[in-house]
Amino acid sequence: MAARLPPRPREREVSPPRVRDVPIGLRATGTRTERDSLGEIEVPAEHYWGAQTQRSLIHFDIGDDRMPKAVYHAYGYIKKAAAIVNARAGRLSRWRAELIERVADEVIRGELDGEFPLYVWQTGSGTQSNMNVNEVISNRAIQLVGGRLGSKDPIHPNDHVNMGQSSNDTFVTAMHLAAVAAIDDRVLPAATRLRESTAAKSRRWGHAVKIGRTHLEDATPLTAGQEWSGYAAQLGDAIDHLRRTRTGLYRLAVGGTAVGTGLNAPPGFGEEVAEQLARLTGRPFTSAPNKFAAQASCDDVVRASAALRSLAVPLFKFANDLRWLGSGPRTGLHELILPANEPGSSIMPGKVNPTQAEAMLMVAVQVAGNDTAVSMAGAEGNFELNAFRPVIIKNVLHSARILADMIDHFRTYLVEGAELNTERLRHNIDHSIMMVTALSPVVGYDRAARIAHHALDNGLPLKEAALQCGIAEDLYDRIVNPEALTRPGVPSPDGAGHP
Amino acid sequence: MAARLPPRPREREVSPPRVRDVPIGLRATGTRTERDSLGEIEVPAEHYWGAQTQRSLIHFDIGDDRMPKAVYHAYGYIKKAAAIVNARAGRLSRWRAELIERVADEVIRGELDGEFPLYVWQTGSGTQSNMNVNEVISNRAIQLVGGRLGSKDPIHPNDHVNMGQSSNDTFVTAMHLAAVAAIDDRVLPAATRLRESTAAKSRRWGHAVKIGRTHLEDATPLTAGQEWSGYAAQLGDAIDHLRRTRTGLYRLAVGGTAVGTGLNAPPGFGEEVAEQLARLTGRPFTSAPNKFAAQASCDDVVRASAALRSLAVPLFKFANDLRWLGSGPRTGLHELILPANEPGSSIMPGKVNPTQAEAMLMVAVQVAGNDTAVSMAGAEGNFELNAFRPVIIKNVLHSARILADMIDHFRTYLVEGAELNTERLRHNIDHSIMMVTALSPVVGYDRAARIAHHALDNGLPLKEAALQCGIAEDLYDRIVNPEALTRPGVPSPDGAGHP
Amino acid sequence: MAARLPPRPREREVSPPRVRDVPIGLRATGTRTERDSLGEIEVPAEHYWGAQTQRSLIHFDIGDDRMPKAVYHAYGYIKKAAAIVNARAGRLSRWRAELIERVADEVIRGELDGEFPLYVWQTGSGTQSNMNVNEVISNRAIQLVGGRLGSKDPIHPNDHVNMGQSSNDTFVTAMHLAAVAAIDDRVLPAATRLRESTAAKSRRWGHAVKIGRTHLEDATPLTAGQEWSGYAAQLGDAIDHLRRTRTGLYRLAVGGTAVGTGLNAPPGFGEEVAEQLARLTGRPFTSAPNKFAAQASCDDVVRASAALRSLAVPLFKFANDLRWLGSGPRTGLHELILPANEPGSSIMPGKVNPTQAEAMLMVAVQVAGNDTAVSMAGAEGNFELNAFRPVIIKNVLHSARILADMIDHFRTYLVEGAELNTERLRHNIDHSIMMVTALSPVVGYDRAARIAHHALDNGLPLKEAALQCGIAEDLYDRIVNPEALTRPGVPSPDGAGHP
Amino acid sequence: MAARLPPRPREREVSPPRVRDVPIGLRATGTRTERDSLGEIEVPAEHYWGAQTQRSLIHFDIGDDRMPKAVYHAYGYIKKAAAIVNARAGRLSRWRAELIERVADEVIRGELDGEFPLYVWQTGSGTQSNMNVNEVISNRAIQLVGGRLGSKDPIHPNDHVNMGQSSNDTFVTAMHLAAVAAIDDRVLPAATRLRESTAAKSRRWGHAVKIGRTHLEDATPLTAGQEWSGYAAQLGDAIDHLRRTRTGLYRLAVGGTAVGTGLNAPPGFGEEVAEQLARLTGRPFTSAPNKFAAQASCDDVVRASAALRSLAVPLFKFANDLRWLGSGPRTGLHELILPANEPGSSIMPGKVNPTQAEAMLMVAVQVAGNDTAVSMAGAEGNFELNAFRPVIIKNVLHSARILADMIDHFRTYLVEGAELNTERLRHNIDHSIMMVTALSPVVGYDRAARIAHHALDNGLPLKEAALQCGIAEDLYDRIVNPEALTRPGVPSPDGAGHP
Repeated sequence: MAARLPPRPREREVSPPRVRDVPIGLRATGTRTERDSLGEIEVPAEHYWGAQTQRSLIHFDIGDDRMPKAVYHAYGYIKKAAAIVNARAGRLSRWRAELIERVADEVIRGELDGEFPLYVWQTGSGTQSNMNVNEVISNRAIQLVGGRLGSKDPIHPNDHVNMGQSSNDTFVTAMHLAAVAAIDDRVLPAATRLRESTAAKSRRWGHAVKIGRTHLEDATPLTAGQEWSGYAAQLGDAIDHLRRTRTGLYRLAVGGTAVGTGLNAPPGFGEEVAEQLARLTGRPFTSAPNKFAAQASCDDVVRASAALRSLAVPLFKFANDLRWLGSGPRTGLHELILPANEPGSSIMPGKVNPTQAEAMLMVAVQVAGNDTAVSMAGAEGNFELNAFRPVIIKNVLHSARILADMIDHFRTYLVEGAELNTERLRHNIDHSIMMVTALSPVVGYDRAARIAHHALDNGLPLKEAALQCGIAEDLYDRIVNPEALTRPGVPSPDGAGHP
Repeated sequence: MAARLPPRPREREVSPPRVRDVPIGLRATGTRTERDSLGEIEVPAEHYWGAQTQRSLIHFDIGDDRMPKAVYHAYGYIKKAAAIVNARAGRLSRWRAELIERVADEVIRGELDGEFPLYVWQTGSGTQSNMNVNEVISNRAIQLVGGRLGSKDPIHPNDHVNMGQSSNDTFVTAMHLAAVAAIDDRVLPAATRLRESTAAKSRRWGHAVKIGRTHLEDATPLTAGQEWSGYAAQLGDAIDHLRRTRTGLYRLAVGGTAVGTGLNAPPGFGEEVAEQLARLTGRPFTSAPNKFAAQASCDDVVRASAALRSLAVPLFKFANDLRWLGSGPRTGLHELILPANEPGSSIMPGKVNPTQAEAMLMVAVQVAGNDTAVSMAGAEGNFELNAFRPVIIKNVLHSARILADMIDHFRTYLVEGAELNTERLRHNIDHSIMMVTALSPVVGYDRAARIAHHALDNGLPLKEAALQCGIAEDLYDRIVNPEALTRPGVPSPDGAGHP
Repeated sequence: MAARLPPRPREREVSPPRVRDVPIGLRATGTRTERDSLGEIEVPAEHYWGAQTQRSLIHFDIGDDRMPKAVYHAYGYIKKAAAIVNARAGRLSRWRAELIERVADEVIRGELDGEFPLYVWQTGSGTQSNMNVNEVISNRAIQLVGGRLGSKDPIHPNDHVNMGQSSNDTFVTAMHLAAVAAIDDRVLPAATRLRESTAAKSRRWGHAVKIGRTHLEDATPLTAGQEWSGYAAQLGDAIDHLRRTRTGLYRLAVGGTAVGTGLNAPPGFGEEVAEQLARLTGRPFTSAPNKFAAQASCDDVVRASAALRSLAVPLFKFANDLRWLGSGPRTGLHELILPANEPGSSIMPGKVNPTQAEAMLMVAVQVAGNDTAVSMAGAEGNFELNAFRPVIIKNVLHSARILADMIDHFRTYLVEGAELNTERLRHNIDHSIMMVTALSPVVGYDRAARIAHHALDNGLPLKEAALQCGIAEDLYDRIVNPEALTRPGVPSPDGAGHP
Repeated sequence: MAARLPPRPREREVSPPRVRDVPIGLRATGTRTERDSLGEIEVPAEHYWGAQTQRSLIHFDIGDDRMPKAVYHAYGYIKKAAAIVNARAGRLSRWRAELIERVADEVIRGELDGEFPLYVWQTGSGTQSNMNVNEVISNRAIQLVGGRLGSKDPIHPNDHVNMGQSSNDTFVTAMHLAAVAAIDDRVLPAATRLRESTAAKSRRWGHAVKIGRTHLEDATPLTAGQEWSGYAAQLGDAIDHLRRTRTGLYRLAVGGTAVGTGLNAPPGFGEEVAEQLARLTGRPFTSAPNKFAAQASCDDVVRASAALRSLAVPLFKFANDLRWLGSGPRTGLHELILPANEPGSSIMPGKVNPTQAEAMLMVAVQVAGNDTAVSMAGAEGNFELNAFRPVIIKNVLHSARILADMIDHFRTYLVEGAELNTERLRHNIDHSIMMVTALSPVVGYDRAARIAHHALDNGLPLKEAALQCGIAEDLYDRIVNPEALTRPGVPSPDGAGHP
């Protein structure tokens, strides 16, 4: 039904040039003239990039925030996949495709990282970074066949490297690739390792009875293992949620080109490129079912950001608990002995501080701030494009990076070295009065409350107060057994609480 | 292995009192003396609540934010389920259980809403609201059997209504129940209706070609149907995500009691209560596998809040697009004719404004602000309890409520009545020059760019500029066909884009 | 230079009707027909509001959030001031002005609150609330002179009540009035009272030596008075900042009318109305120097919101410290004994929790969330109007309200009743080792650190460790004097630290 | 009254070593052994830093976020000022002080930047960065006198470089210094330049009549100059507010040492150091009146962050308006012709996008996100220390940096080159119907509304509609004069609106 474009004209046939094995690098000094549709411009001769990159460098020399390299690596995959698909369909000659693929591999491996200098604060579509990739691949390919840099011949940045693509579909595709990689390769493994270390502690401390605390106030006892099983379970849930959030990231915009219609891309292009990307990366990427949504929004990335924040939330609680449990050593809770990694004070000799916990708390706060920026930016799309992409991907990759690194350090330098102060645990159990709760079902809430108040008002141990209030000693001893109170018959939660 | 509590003493046997059919309401005036462990206190005689509710009213008379009634309705289910389970196991006499169930049903039906006056700004565990429920059920039950209000006899707020429970496990359980209900009964249906109305527009406008816009600038054409398929797809994805987020909400803390160990609740209590709750509500609730995580955090609710925000994000974009597309009528884009629901200005006669879109934008912003509060609060748990629960559930239910209502109004008063200004669509298509993109694969990007600049610089229609630049007219006409450009062979996205 | 409008036509002369002393209230039942430029509509006969209010009620029945009454009270002042100014210039007959003023006074006193039912989620300019006021004043005035409701005769909602005004200038004016009132009458007095109570504690506890804590870890000593002087100083700074932020709120948009040019308002109208508003309210209001900025933005209100958040920040810290200092009673820090206002647990008898602190923490979090919404909304103005005003004023007034109330409750029920646990303070001082810091300038950091580690590793009191490390006893006793260490000669900070 | 420390022992008298003129840099390779109170550790031999820096590098190798160099430059001033004060009082020998001052000058000039490698995610007090400075100054000084690196002799990092200081007072002092510098030297000048460029446009376009827009809908006219006067005024207010916010930043914590009491610092030390800092930097720094508040909070920096956000808010609006006003060129508003700085699309030839505006919008969003993090972190102080300082200063300096740079680019590449599309302005004025508003005071709102609806319904020009509705032509022509409507007699706002 839909009108079809005429078959694309085959490329002008030129005989394949010889590809030389030139190492990466340009020896030239001074500048080289490059041009784009706005005219000529001088670029540094030692760099591969072209006119549009250079213009961006001039117009957007803002702060220190560079577009993350991971975005370019992702773009390497995209350019490679597109070349493969274009060549297969005969729209691009095989030798041109192979040249592009070869340089794309260099991009993927990070060997051309120095050629991608652009800032985050640039065009909202990411076009300048896409053109940076197109220009670098073009010139590096030209170098490989002994051509003239800037000639765009025989590899043109737009006509060949960008064939069938727009920044509008590929940049958000690169965002998905980079976000998935960061989550899969960095965050999830680190979080899983922490969950395991935490569960191991939980198992190890399954019988260490300690006082529970609610509202920061003394409550009924539990084991340290149970407490830590909670940390492990929170982490496990956050991990599962983050994992599920990848679903949306697997769907790629590529194929939609300028506004989602796929103009200038042949039928099936998006599907084929997604397939190649799945093959090249080993991840289950597919073509997004609706390109208009995929390009006009960054909703999937916004959800990924929220999922990262959802991981930061339990980490904040975990770190906060640990620094409080380790507080002291003489006047705090000090139920936990934290590793002394470094001197804590420039003025107070011998001070040791919960620095890993503090760093984690700060990372969590940063992730929350990043997420605020992402969510604001994610809402600001207009018509066929969300033009806040660079700030979105910068923040998501930042959150992923600092979370992953921080989690590993927190595990290595805090969790794994933490030890229970069993003496203090016992002391607290002996002095708390909240075990009175166990009496409540037997003597009723009101009478139990009277015992508690009696103990508090007179500074008595619970048992003494109970006996003075008329509880029989054998009843007391049978009911108020701290160890028993921690396992009143609740089935083992998830293998962690009761090993 | 774990020590077991001695079998709970059977309730003192009293013969079941006669239950009268007393309508809700107390005729008394003045005050009545109630007491709790801190002593006696006067409460208004016309209300069922007791001492702890009254103390909370005095100490927390802060602002206008009351604990949402939905939390109490959820509590009605919990008290009923617990009574059933307790009676079945013989811990609670059948007639006591039936009394509690009967009053719990009144709570569930909202008939006792006026008895739940407490503020959001109260104890962080929600204990005061739990006790409010316990006290009201106790006194209403006492009324039904002709007892003395405040006597706690024969139904004691703690010993009977709260049997096997703590606020620490039940309040977060009530939060899950209330959040799921709000999402299931309000947000998802409203969002789905909007998605359907939007998809219907997409189908209806499948052939209405219009100019695309990226960076707010003229881009290549698409159909209005395609544009709206994007809105529908964004909504669909947000709906799916929100649906999936319920998973965590289905897992209930109940059974963990004070600190997660289940002290004072019999083995299996959590599982049985969850089963009853599933039965009573018709939703797949289960017992949370780890009670320590379930009580020390509100992570599942934090994730639900993020999912609500993830729905607000595409709604912001949708509303923003609509108000821009409707802008004018004479000097804006005016591609869309929005319904005139009310006069727009107190000073400018005849003005019509995109007020539904504005209200939606404001709601989206509110949801984002609410989510910031929720996420901050969610991180602040300490040890065995997150004591920021009231602010969390308030904000989540607020977001759900205003989203659901707003979506319905937006659909009814804006989306469904919106009409295309086809004259303007056509005019824009005729005047845009970005169809030059279609020439790019044929003549190359650089030459196409020259044509575009030629048109712009000289104020020419694209065709004239192209011809002046040497493009053959028949080639131009074959390639630059707006209708065809909108469907270059991309397979139909999800049934919506290409009806 | 600028062209002048022709002199406004004098009002058609009608003889002043007799004003009767009719109490507020309409006896009618059923509906009454009102009309606006979109036609006729039925309104409830027992209400004064007219067609536009009714349309808004139908189209924006969203959630429970009503436009705060404080906005209407502020509008009462504006309508009164405008009538005075209009009458003085002869644009409005004296009797009409007096009628409007009379009803405006009823609005100001809150006597017509029930007539302002509109929702927050309405038109972004606040026009519907402005028209609500115009309609109510019109009909109430008509009632007072025995006219026909809905006839707009002799007081027309637009031509008379709204004379010289637009919603675009008056609504943001009302926002400023309401925000200043909330800050001046509620927040600042409450915060100042808390600051004073806190400073009183600081003075009272000026000699109570206690262990300091940094990173939650034991540090060098200070007095409880010094610690509390910090709370007082933080509050004082936040109060000063909030006070200064009113500067912008004092500048009013009124006079700019539709887009800031003042069309349909006579020269000097803004200045004169501002002058009247200053006179009527007793606050230093002036006319905003640039109406375009004043109407296109809500920047001053955004800054006020940030200042409220800047007050919430130290309150969060204060509340957090207090609940930690009060933690225990047996296994926490318990340096502070907090008042027991209510039973803390439905399951744990005798438990007392820091509920006022928790409520304050939640309020602070809410204020932060509100501020996020305000700041997002504040950025979203377009051209001559920011159309996110209702969500902005709702959140700012909400923050002000809950802050003010919470601060008073926190002071009354927590701060004023808090007592030092002097026994615990002394015990902590006796056991801490961080007084070693005082030795550092004498023996050098490195040797002091060795003493500290020696004490820690061997569980020794500091003195014993010091002596074992070769410190002379008399030197130790001279240097390590906890009381002296708290006042090493720093001059008294602000009268609070060292009373 | 307060006990005084015994006079500090004079430094051990050693004869001043000869200071050589050694350029910065260490030739050594491999590692060097350094030690601190936790023992020995190998550090890279080519670096000056010592044991504690090295430990931090190992334990906090997290992400890419390094502590901003500006913090170290600020620390250079602090170390210099402290040395001067210490030497003057005879606590530090003159030659030692001079050595420290000399190296501190190298720090201030950025010559030792490479020696400050630490991460943001470190101890929350900033101690590691303080020790980094102490160690580097110590070893660089040792190098200058030909000593042995790591010997701490004759300049000890703690005993000499850190004399009278703690990280707890100096790091927050450095934060204030760095924040003031960023605001004074970068943000305020850039913002002022933009305000001036904007005001210049406002003056230039003072007579260019254009259609106003409210709710994005056609409204009454104003001049482009008036519109831009609003941007200038918004900027001016934000600048004033930011300027005022420096007040708090001028008050320095230094002198409070470990917990605010000033232990180990002599009386008056804070005042004298603040005086030196004022002298050295030329800014009005003073000693904070309450050190407990100054160290336990970062409230002043939180307020500075809010003030930066308050600048981002009007910038968001400004940038957003400009991109919309420039939209088109054929199918948008296109009242403004934006400079074409670079090709806009990799696929759409000839496309020009509002990239500077987009970058500004993204920067504004980032600043909002940063501010969320800052405000969360600012609330999290405990007792005598806020241990979230690194994340706070990182975000504030980041916001300042990107705002300042972005503002300059926005001005240079967008604002200054923007031109009015006068043809379009005129066309819009000719076609709009909202000038009907001017008729309202003459014919009444209701009749004016009928004219407007008549024009709209029948697609008529306003005049024709008015005449058809019975308005006399000469009345119409006298009243509805667009030029005149823009200046109905409102006095010139701030010199900008009416040049």
